[in-house]
Amino acid sequence: MSEIDILISEVGPRDGLQSIEAIMPTEAKKAWVAAEAAAGIREIEVGSFVPPKLLPQMADTAEIVAYARTLPGLTVAALVPNLKGAENAIKAGAHKISLPLSVSETHSKANLRKSHEQVLDEVRAIVELLNSLPANQRPGFEGSLSTAFGCTLEGPVPETKVTELARKLIEAGCDEVGLSDTTGMANPRQLRRLIRLVRSEVGDDKLTGVHLHNTRGLGLANILAALDEGITTVDSSLGGLGGCPYAPGASGNIVTEDLAFMLDSMGLRTGIDLGKLLEVRAIVTDALPDEAMYGFTPDAGLPKGYVSGWGIGK
Amino acid sequence: MSEIDILISEVGPRDGLQSIEAIMPTEAKKAWVAAEAAAGIREIEVGSFVPPKLLPQMADTAEIVAYARTLPGLTVAALVPNLKGAENAIKAGAHKISLPLSVSETHSKANLRKSHEQVLDEVRAIVELLNSLPANQRPGFEGSLSTAFGCTLEGPVPETKVTELARKLIEAGCDEVGLSDTTGMANPRQLRRLIRLVRSEVGDDKLTGVHLHNTRGLGLANILAALDEGITTVDSSLGGLGGCPYAPGASGNIVTEDLAFMLDSMGLRTGIDLGKLLEVRAIVTDALPDEAMYGFTPDAGLPKGYVSGWGIGK
Repeated sequence: MSEIDILISEVGPRDGLQSIEAIMPTEAKKAWVAAEAAAGIREIEVGSFVPPKLLPQMADTAEIVAYARTLPGLTVAALVPNLKGAENAIKAGAHKISLPLSVSETHSKANLRKSHEQVLDEVRAIVELLNSLPANQRPGFEGSLSTAFGCTLEGPVPETKVTELARKLIEAGCDEVGLSDTTGMANPRQLRRLIRLVRSEVGDDKLTGVHLHNTRGLGLANILAALDEGITTVDSSLGGLGGCPYAPGASGNIVTEDLAFMLDSMGLRTGIDLGKLLEVRAIVTDALPDEAMYGFTPDAGLPKGYVSGWGIGK
Repeated sequence: MSEIDILISEVGPRDGLQSIEAIMPTEAKKAWVAAEAAAGIREIEVGSFVPPKLLPQMADTAEIVAYARTLPGLTVAALVPNLKGAENAIKAGAHKISLPLSVSETHSKANLRKSHEQVLDEVRAIVELLNSLPANQRPGFEGSLSTAFGCTLEGPVPETKVTELARKLIEAGCDEVGLSDTTGMANPRQLRRLIRLVRSEVGDDKLTGVHLHNTRGLGLANILAALDEGITTVDSSLGGLGGCPYAPGASGNIVTEDLAFMLDSMGLRTGIDLGKLLEVRAIVTDALPDEAMYGFTPDAGLPKGYVSGWGIGK
């Protein structure tokens, strides 16, 4: 496979689908994942190993993981809220698992019904499980610091809390931490600063990815700020799926199509064929005709005479 | 008036209204301009001095200029396509006039029915007129390089053409040049590079403003790149008014509300009261109920516990 500069990690099948009421049929999920992989997307978070009673949209995650593993060159990621979820993810064959730790403890207790220490206990139990596996079966394990830029319940979140929890996640055995703007409150200066602070706490190689939202329209500006700091993995969702960004609890994800166009136009290699990526949207809108899809590039199309990295003076 | 770091120049009453079919009543225009000024917007491009037969939406521009001049602390800007327009703008009392020069000559001929040399002749005639005025009645005069990042007719536009025309505009007597991404094709790296190239040609103080669009969703990322290069004046339109960004000829303007939130959250002073700004939208939607309005911050609202410049480590 060709080299890339920036890894776009598609989270629509997890973060998008878990935020909407409709349940996407398993076959449509498979078609979506396959089409994105064929368009050159290298990593997809395909689902979440949560109890189907809580999130019926995610009930077929094990099947989707198993299917996605058959797609050449694709890293198959999944979210796990606890040890039980990690066990299921490993059984299904996920290449990478992420566990969210909400920096706002109020949010953590409201969403996961767990204190920080209880979440860290799950992390330690997962690491113990991972360490018992043969090296070639061990998935990567990221601790994802959610509500890192502010919380809809607590408001501002102290940076010292973010850096402290980043350190604790690494000490507990996570391979990496990620910064998540769960609530769409981040701004570019705050992001640059927090990336530097966390990296100075845990090391540059322990923070390479961010999960940003577009709730207030700053998504791509925040991505640009993150790239300036050397971040190389960025999450996004096809069509910004995750429902209406201003509905309670909805995500306002960054739109994969606009993100891919921005990076490609800047001459940053993503491995993605933009034309093919823009065609994937039809699979999602056919399967979810009532969901709002976002993004500008899908409607505007590529500019006349467009070539990757135009105007950057190569 | 308090000091500001970045000047947001509202172009909705000109770039927004000229792009839509509906004609906003004069009283609504006045209410809009007054409400934005009251919210702290320091500069508004209130209209265009073009023949009413061509753009009936702009027929009352002289009246709007005269009214806007009564608003304390507001710089009243207007677009002029030629000497005749400049005469009318001066008569009406505009503080600042801009003349567009399309870097794509195909676009220039299609839109203004003028070659580059013919447009530069208009510029020279305007400068002669300006120089005949008493200093305290002389408006500022910007030459705006439109289609500077690509053209829907020609495709890519050579950088050397942009720098050459920038030099010619300054030589013809413009106070400043501006860079316009008329077609929404710019990307952050291209923008940074072109700002540097133009500044090295005409001097840093001759390029302080950019007019960017959000046609492919990159608007705020491009603004961030421009700020990194020291740009201090940025154009935007309330609600991104200018119609559907993918309709032929529509603009996809940068949304003033999202831009103002981004700058304020980064701790950059704009003089704007965000709460008041968000209320202005109702004036426009009441007067133009059928027009699409864009932006995320108006729907999401300000974050819980929000204060200007939060999280930037002041």
